[in-house]
Amino acid sequence: MKTSEQLLSLVEQALNGIDYPNVPQGLYEPISYTLQGGGKRIRPVLTLMCYNAFCEDVEKVLPAALGIEIYHNHTLLHDDLMDHAEVRRSRPTVHVKWDANTAILSGDTMLIMACRFMQQTDAVRKGEMMDLFIRTMDEICQGQQYDMNFENRSDVTETEYIEMIRLKTSVLLGCAAKMGALCANASASDAQALYDFAMNVGLAFQLRDDYLDVYGDPAVFGKAIGGDIRCGKKTFLLIRALSKMDAEGQAELLKTLHDTDLDPEVKVSTVRATYDRLSIQQECREAIDAFYNKARVHLEQTSLNAEAKDYLWQFAQTLLNRQK
Amino acid sequence: MKTSEQLLSLVEQALNGIDYPNVPQGLYEPISYTLQGGGKRIRPVLTLMCYNAFCEDVEKVLPAALGIEIYHNHTLLHDDLMDHAEVRRSRPTVHVKWDANTAILSGDTMLIMACRFMQQTDAVRKGEMMDLFIRTMDEICQGQQYDMNFENRSDVTETEYIEMIRLKTSVLLGCAAKMGALCANASASDAQALYDFAMNVGLAFQLRDDYLDVYGDPAVFGKAIGGDIRCGKKTFLLIRALSKMDAEGQAELLKTLHDTDLDPEVKVSTVRATYDRLSIQQECREAIDAFYNKARVHLEQTSLNAEAKDYLWQFAQTLLNRQK
Repeated sequence: MKTSEQLLSLVEQALNGIDYPNVPQGLYEPISYTLQGGGKRIRPVLTLMCYNAFCEDVEKVLPAALGIEIYHNHTLLHDDLMDHAEVRRSRPTVHVKWDANTAILSGDTMLIMACRFMQQTDAVRKGEMMDLFIRTMDEICQGQQYDMNFENRSDVTETEYIEMIRLKTSVLLGCAAKMGALCANASASDAQALYDFAMNVGLAFQLRDDYLDVYGDPAVFGKAIGGDIRCGKKTFLLIRALSKMDAEGQAELLKTLHDTDLDPEVKVSTVRATYDRLSIQQECREAIDAFYNKARVHLEQTSLNAEAKDYLWQFAQTLLNRQK
Repeated sequence: MKTSEQLLSLVEQALNGIDYPNVPQGLYEPISYTLQGGGKRIRPVLTLMCYNAFCEDVEKVLPAALGIEIYHNHTLLHDDLMDHAEVRRSRPTVHVKWDANTAILSGDTMLIMACRFMQQTDAVRKGEMMDLFIRTMDEICQGQQYDMNFENRSDVTETEYIEMIRLKTSVLLGCAAKMGALCANASASDAQALYDFAMNVGLAFQLRDDYLDVYGDPAVFGKAIGGDIRCGKKTFLLIRALSKMDAEGQAELLKTLHDTDLDPEVKVSTVRATYDRLSIQQECREAIDAFYNKARVHLEQTSLNAEAKDYLWQFAQTLLNRQK
């Protein structure tokens, strides 16, 4: 089996090798800008690994892997526009560097391009692969809508929050893993177990993101701690904390969080002190571990040999042990 | 063969029968609002007719026909947002009734939904159908980009303009026709001839749109004459007129067109007088007829019997003889 570094370099090479038309002027530059902006390429590498766990000729699944990565970047492009985010991977976002219309249209074009790559895959079960891809893209739109709806609500439950991150981010990891299995013509149960494995890794990964924002090591995390608190974002930690408080405590926590006059440093330390008092750090770690363990169980359910399982588990651990 | 009215009613029924999820709140209302906003359903009806010219069981091609109509409505939704258009089919556009983010995300969801319907079609040549659909969507994005680029240019040639409307609007008619043929497992030459037939009908249709804006009967046209002149839009008439003038005349015509202080009525009559002087009305009619005749030639190239050819030609004539 190829190492994840080898697969990553295959993905980068393929992305850099995409041949963009020269005209119409303005349509493809933002796409190549977006796709060459780096990123960890977790999803396409996962697709290649899951394929490689069954078959050697990884090139076969490369178009599908690229389709997933292109779609992922499409969502980032349109989400950044909707969120008015100005920076992505240390560079100006497309609607800042160009304009909103460019972001809309090149984003649409990327979605179509993603379908084109998926459709280019030469596989017996291409129909099933396309079905999975379309269902996943649909779920991700639902997740984004839930995320936007939640911004205006202060009564989001933990179940709702988990469902939102499952749709918005985790199903694409599940899809990436299952895509590799389907292309390798794996059994239905192996394909589904790999989906569930990666989906749970995705949930753990997302909660870890929430966790690191408050409890990460700033030196390793690479950015200031408390960004989510500063901008009053709904996170697992906040929702869990609110669920453990009475109405008065909830009101006070939310007041602190949305107090625009409060010094940001004071806001972060006050909210963090509340989290500490309620053992949110410990509980969040436990929630992460629970998804992590579920992922392991699903991986064990596959018919893969120990080496292949270990190969995928190592990758999951690399993702989850990241400090940034 | 079923009449176009019968096929239209099949399309409307199927669109009304789409089952939208109730949640997440806000994602599907704008989609059902958009799809139930009426419109002539030219594209899906054309798909059904081209299928029906070969096979009886038109229900088989219905998902593909709906996919095309849903995609078409996706482009209207996103184009209206990019153009800041406030009204579509006498109702507020989605970004006006809701907001820009809703328009972006439900537009994306419609694109995915269009692919889902296309993918649901049960046909031997589904792969070819999906390839055609993806290529067409890609071309339409290119057309929209050309259209946006042309807004900032005063030197657009007639060839460039025709290529822009071919990409932006005509290829979808070609795609709609060919889709019916592919689903009916027609020969490659019949499928291509039907594509060329409908594409040329589309070009004639689009030029006729430009023509009617200036030379239509206001009572029949249903809206004030000269809308394109009022907003300084590039049209076939303007481009042809400019091509027949010297630099001085061009500058004067463009100055009149972009003069924001000029009374709109005066602007329309001045520009129209220039067109009249240059025989643009006659030349535009000839250009329309040329595409119309090309369409006829391609239709004749098919192996269809006289009845089926007549059936499709009648539909093309209905489109082209419309006064509004």
